[in-house]
Amino acid sequence: MCSRTAGTKTLPAGIAPKLVTADWREVVSHPDIDIVAELVGGTGAAREIVEGAIAAGKCVVTANKELIALEGVNIWRQAEAQGVALAMEASVCGGIPIHAVLREGIAGDHIETIFGILNGTSNYILTEIEQNGADFGGVLKEAQRLGYAEADPTADVDGYDARSKLALLASLAFGVRLTPADIYTEGIRRISPTDFQYAKQLGCTIKLLCSARRAEGGLFISVRPALLPTKTIMASVQGAYNAVWSRGAFGADTFYYGRGAGPTPTGVAVVSDLMRVARQLRPEPAHRVPPFAYTELPDAAPLPIGKQRRPWYLRFRITDRPGIIRDLSSILAEHSISIDAVLQLPDLDKQNLPFVITLENSPEAAVRSAVEKMTALDFMVEPPLAMPIERGV
Amino acid sequence: MCSRTAGTKTLPAGIAPKLVTADWREVVSHPDIDIVAELVGGTGAAREIVEGAIAAGKCVVTANKELIALEGVNIWRQAEAQGVALAMEASVCGGIPIHAVLREGIAGDHIETIFGILNGTSNYILTEIEQNGADFGGVLKEAQRLGYAEADPTADVDGYDARSKLALLASLAFGVRLTPADIYTEGIRRISPTDFQYAKQLGCTIKLLCSARRAEGGLFISVRPALLPTKTIMASVQGAYNAVWSRGAFGADTFYYGRGAGPTPTGVAVVSDLMRVARQLRPEPAHRVPPFAYTELPDAAPLPIGKQRRPWYLRFRITDRPGIIRDLSSILAEHSISIDAVLQLPDLDKQNLPFVITLENSPEAAVRSAVEKMTALDFMVEPPLAMPIERGV
Repeated sequence: MCSRTAGTKTLPAGIAPKLVTADWREVVSHPDIDIVAELVGGTGAAREIVEGAIAAGKCVVTANKELIALEGVNIWRQAEAQGVALAMEASVCGGIPIHAVLREGIAGDHIETIFGILNGTSNYILTEIEQNGADFGGVLKEAQRLGYAEADPTADVDGYDARSKLALLASLAFGVRLTPADIYTEGIRRISPTDFQYAKQLGCTIKLLCSARRAEGGLFISVRPALLPTKTIMASVQGAYNAVWSRGAFGADTFYYGRGAGPTPTGVAVVSDLMRVARQLRPEPAHRVPPFAYTELPDAAPLPIGKQRRPWYLRFRITDRPGIIRDLSSILAEHSISIDAVLQLPDLDKQNLPFVITLENSPEAAVRSAVEKMTALDFMVEPPLAMPIERGV
Repeated sequence: MCSRTAGTKTLPAGIAPKLVTADWREVVSHPDIDIVAELVGGTGAAREIVEGAIAAGKCVVTANKELIALEGVNIWRQAEAQGVALAMEASVCGGIPIHAVLREGIAGDHIETIFGILNGTSNYILTEIEQNGADFGGVLKEAQRLGYAEADPTADVDGYDARSKLALLASLAFGVRLTPADIYTEGIRRISPTDFQYAKQLGCTIKLLCSARRAEGGLFISVRPALLPTKTIMASVQGAYNAVWSRGAFGADTFYYGRGAGPTPTGVAVVSDLMRVARQLRPEPAHRVPPFAYTELPDAAPLPIGKQRRPWYLRFRITDRPGIIRDLSSILAEHSISIDAVLQLPDLDKQNLPFVITLENSPEAAVRSAVEKMTALDFMVEPPLAMPIERGV
């Protein structure tokens, strides 16, 4: 419940006005409310709301990174004393369910190292410097104009935002409590297009990398620009996305990727927390999260695959002779299928010539029928191979 | 508990022999046992064990993909009737906590599409065909020799293994129950090095892609080789790794990656399930999974970052004159730091010349001290920029 929208025109349809209040104390003290979601942000009113709700015996879901990084352990202890649940999936990497992963999914592992790209703004700026060869100042100005960077960009480009997130992730991964200010932190202001040129010569790109690794006696932990090999999956994280890489002593490497923030990814994290906490409020086994996620699992038959429309790759092996493209394109035209491109690699065996036709978005049934007809053609060495092209992944 | 090791020399140290039995019925009927982990595999004895344990009022953790794909919903209903928990994180994508993600982490989203690379053997074979230009038959034979493919490779290379996993993921993502045999399935036997050459011309690679997407009236679902743009994160999944891509109506794109199988990743999934189920056995709030994953969170100071050893990138801007490398390399030698390479891009401004020295693995304190000394040199236009090189991500 967020009191900010009270009395404004942004109240969504279907929410009865009597459910809305501008006074958070009404929510926190209401006897019918079991769970309070705090989406106010900051450490002022938000802290009062969270602590007030816990004191009133209510479970709390929060998306508040600053509050959790600063006071998370104290707040958790208050919740524990009251026997209420505290959930905070949205507080770091909004779009990636990294809390669920570290808290439960790989709880049985012994994590050795985590790497993260945890600040979308700085990652976007680095991506722009790399791709457009523009300098830091120009890219920052453009990012500010587009609303990707704030008027005061310090928290993002100097690594302070990433540092708070890393402190939180390190708590989840290693079971220790770190003061964000103790983490070695260096921003991206000095990274130039030249650095990307040199990095490329070394087979690398540059990212604002958060890292924490176990060593004898503790953790090495830092936020700083670093070179990463271009062929690694971490290097492929572009623009406003976040990612976390974990290396465990037993489970080896796992990797998690998604939007770092934004209203709807954060909303998913908050609603997911609400669902989990609501189930925890009832101790009966029937209220556990079911193993298949849903409480009902109706039988379903897939849709007929022939109706699926995709762009297609058709690869032929033929004995070359004049008129091949004419024959194949006639069959495609009969099936109302449009050709996108015809490709032929140089210097191939004319007796067993592989070449390719790509098709525009077409229903699978039509493509199959055309392929079947093509298979009977005299120049065909083997049946054509048809594969969909998935550009949207 | 696995009865297979009973009486053999593989019993790990620290396990008292009286805890070991060759008769699973002893485990399932033992009054002191609350949770039974079934790691036998198959649908024969494994099914008897799982159903027997549930009937005896015990919670079950299973890593059994076949059993869950075939009988998962029935088994879940039995567990529900008995009020016991069923957990099966290891049953699909052993090294990726995809159950925790879909069941809880992004439970609040409405998933539109999932893509998966769910069979490590076929992905390894495709990676080898692409990288070495060898044909399918040769790569398969080599994979069999190395133990990466089974003597009968059908389940892997013809897509049947991936199909069972996709049916399970679709249940978790979309809340429906699918018969694996109803899923359109096509293997990789026909994919040749030529196809990778053509795919490359199209900016793509080829993967055995599992996909399920909502459409009007149901799901389009298939396992088949498909072209994916090389620049996508899914295309970067190499060798024996698995990956799942999810696109939600609200949370946008998320991506999960890790080992598909193997004893230790599967072990992590099973132990994580045991931890979660054990907590569920006690309804008191104090037994909930704590929000920071650990029950104690001691304060910790990071290790001094100066002691961390990394390979380094040093970028200089200088006014060119003879003796530069001599001066810089002298300072590095004084600090016992070894040079890896010296790089200089062509055609740069001699008055503001950026060039790079990379260093072998060296302690950060030594590098900083050297950089500080270098900053004072007369030809230095600005202080050197030092970044670590992270080859291990």
